[in-house]
Amino acid sequence: MTAATWIAAAKGSPFGVHNLPYGVFSTADRPGRRRIGVRIGDFVLDAGAAARATGAPSVLLDADTLNPLLAAGRPLWAEVRAALTHWLTEESYRGALTPLLTPLAEAELHLPFEVADYVDFYSSEHHATNLGRIFRPGAEPLTPNWKHLPIGYHGRSGTVVVSGTPVTRPHGQRKAPSDAVPDFGPTRRLDIEAEVGFVVGTPSEPGSRVPMAGFSEHVFGVCLVNDWSARDIQAWEYVPLGPFLGKSFATSLSPWIVPLEALEHARVAPPARDVEPLPYLDDRAGEPWGLDIELEVRLNGHTLSRPPFAGMYWTAAQQLAQMTANGASLRTGDLFASGTVSGPEPRTRGALIELTWNGTEPIELPDGSTRSFLEDGDEVTITATAPGPAGTRIGFGEVSGRIRP
Amino acid sequence: MTAATWIAAAKGSPFGVHNLPYGVFSTADRPGRRRIGVRIGDFVLDAGAAARATGAPSVLLDADTLNPLLAAGRPLWAEVRAALTHWLTEESYRGALTPLLTPLAEAELHLPFEVADYVDFYSSEHHATNLGRIFRPGAEPLTPNWKHLPIGYHGRSGTVVVSGTPVTRPHGQRKAPSDAVPDFGPTRRLDIEAEVGFVVGTPSEPGSRVPMAGFSEHVFGVCLVNDWSARDIQAWEYVPLGPFLGKSFATSLSPWIVPLEALEHARVAPPARDVEPLPYLDDRAGEPWGLDIELEVRLNGHTLSRPPFAGMYWTAAQQLAQMTANGASLRTGDLFASGTVSGPEPRTRGALIELTWNGTEPIELPDGSTRSFLEDGDEVTITATAPGPAGTRIGFGEVSGRIRP
Repeated sequence: MTAATWIAAAKGSPFGVHNLPYGVFSTADRPGRRRIGVRIGDFVLDAGAAARATGAPSVLLDADTLNPLLAAGRPLWAEVRAALTHWLTEESYRGALTPLLTPLAEAELHLPFEVADYVDFYSSEHHATNLGRIFRPGAEPLTPNWKHLPIGYHGRSGTVVVSGTPVTRPHGQRKAPSDAVPDFGPTRRLDIEAEVGFVVGTPSEPGSRVPMAGFSEHVFGVCLVNDWSARDIQAWEYVPLGPFLGKSFATSLSPWIVPLEALEHARVAPPARDVEPLPYLDDRAGEPWGLDIELEVRLNGHTLSRPPFAGMYWTAAQQLAQMTANGASLRTGDLFASGTVSGPEPRTRGALIELTWNGTEPIELPDGSTRSFLEDGDEVTITATAPGPAGTRIGFGEVSGRIRP
Repeated sequence: MTAATWIAAAKGSPFGVHNLPYGVFSTADRPGRRRIGVRIGDFVLDAGAAARATGAPSVLLDADTLNPLLAAGRPLWAEVRAALTHWLTEESYRGALTPLLTPLAEAELHLPFEVADYVDFYSSEHHATNLGRIFRPGAEPLTPNWKHLPIGYHGRSGTVVVSGTPVTRPHGQRKAPSDAVPDFGPTRRLDIEAEVGFVVGTPSEPGSRVPMAGFSEHVFGVCLVNDWSARDIQAWEYVPLGPFLGKSFATSLSPWIVPLEALEHARVAPPARDVEPLPYLDDRAGEPWGLDIELEVRLNGHTLSRPPFAGMYWTAAQQLAQMTANGASLRTGDLFASGTVSGPEPRTRGALIELTWNGTEPIELPDGSTRSFLEDGDEVTITATAPGPAGTRIGFGEVSGRIRP
């Protein structure tokens, strides 16, 4: 159990010293100057300035992205976290560090790291089953490979944006099964995917594999992802090479990267698997990386669903082992996301296409309007928390975005 | 017609002053110092040093990657090219520049730019038809969307490597239709894909589209690509989200980026299309970007095929319009590749899976051995040329790679 912080307002917060997520912020007085910030309660600590003020080495924290810190590796991540914890719990630092706290409301938050490659998985059995039923009616909903490997694909890293960035409704080719030919226009089926993202710090060598046991050596932390999806564009384009323009227009990230260490109390056993995994994916003997992260999806402030990450069939450690099984190297800043988090119950589904069953069962909102898919002006916000030490909660903050025409 | 160069050995070369491709090189005396080089004949001109020696602005050329030059945009690309042409054709520069020429054999060539996003298309009708027949026997070989849009997907930019980099045979899950379950091991069906790549210089804004007419504003130049493919891994994993580990282990690039200006004489009309394209892909009224690039694929020195790029169904300008049709932004360093170039005749196919018809018709090599797919130690080299001004040829150099276990 860590000591309490001297920041009274942060006590009991899901952003107490047991969390300490990292981000990148700027302030209105120096809008161009991006700095690494650490969230404590509803404040942002200027981490580079704090290192300088305390006489600690500041090179990893005096940067405009998290990438140098990500590249530093697990032993230095632990040192930096220990130093931050020390500064924020030792009363003697109060005088020096209080001027370095910015109220969250006054901080502009930026994409916290430069995304190298972005891989999106598809690891909720409930989501994959629902989408199989919707996209391939009459066929087995899960493809034969699904329980043998975590299926994934590469997304567009250049359009990963930070929470709060507006999302322009994409255009594309749309063709309903009843249409003879496609037409071109704005998507009519704009959707969300509520996901959890994992940020790679330590790179790996080409031709080498990262076993599941290497997960905490390579993965720095965790964030929330909204993998916006245009279902009509996707449905027409995705055979045979997978999703492309139906996804590549925008992927939103939460601004705070929760360190993996903060999630030690959130680890849970993954669900039982129906199919025996091959050895490189078999986590039954080790310490599996199921994580009890509870997500919440809100549309214009109204809660649509509460997807449970603990139920994901494939864990992030299995995803990492899969992603590198062919010797593909990791780079600092690689991001991989879980795929839509959907539970077994209707109100635990992480995408509108499932919540409205491809638009056939619209959702009614408190203002009396209904939604099959997103309308212009709609705002989607995904939040999450997970268990922390001694009954506390770990906050992930939020990833939100508003649709513009 | 440009004047002749004062470098006698470069006269008549496909790397004369009508070409002037850009790369990044280092020399044994300063192995860590990467510099921008311009190929002239079988020499590499140190472009930054040349700019300094001539008193020209050198900031775009004094760099260890092409990215600053790529980002500078079309007017500056033209200025730099005009300056290089001037220096290499005016006899008065001979004395100052001769010391800045390194024999090609003494230059180590590096990946010439930092790859942002990598997109791979699938734009040869012959290749797509052949793969449809092989992967989905009994079904229509082309999916219904194929003639309505250039199909593509995102690849892994972190594993794009320069020509000459060894390729480690990837491991992965393999499952033949007759197997009950997959096993894990080295791929038995390691293949190549001979492609042409396009390098994006000028970025675009999120939410905006790049029309076909914007092609030469955004695309800096052209290179050769070998998109190595593990067919057994790919066949098992690719439904429903497309190729992933079957491709992500390595993609090789030729070290020289041929400027788009050098290909003006290579422009040809693309083949007639059977299906009327939607307006954003309709290039019949404008100046289409078919390119008469003749590829050659060699295995251990033996020519396997001569794929004709001129016959590609979709042009690179259509691919760029497609890639941005949803408002996805471009970044400097984005790479998009054509997909395997295959012509109608067997000896014009750009992948072994087509040349050997999924391994059922092995190729006999001059040493009496046969190949269905690549064996350890095999070396594959792809070269290409295209028409230049006044009967000259434009050389692309080569992309090669040797398989190691």
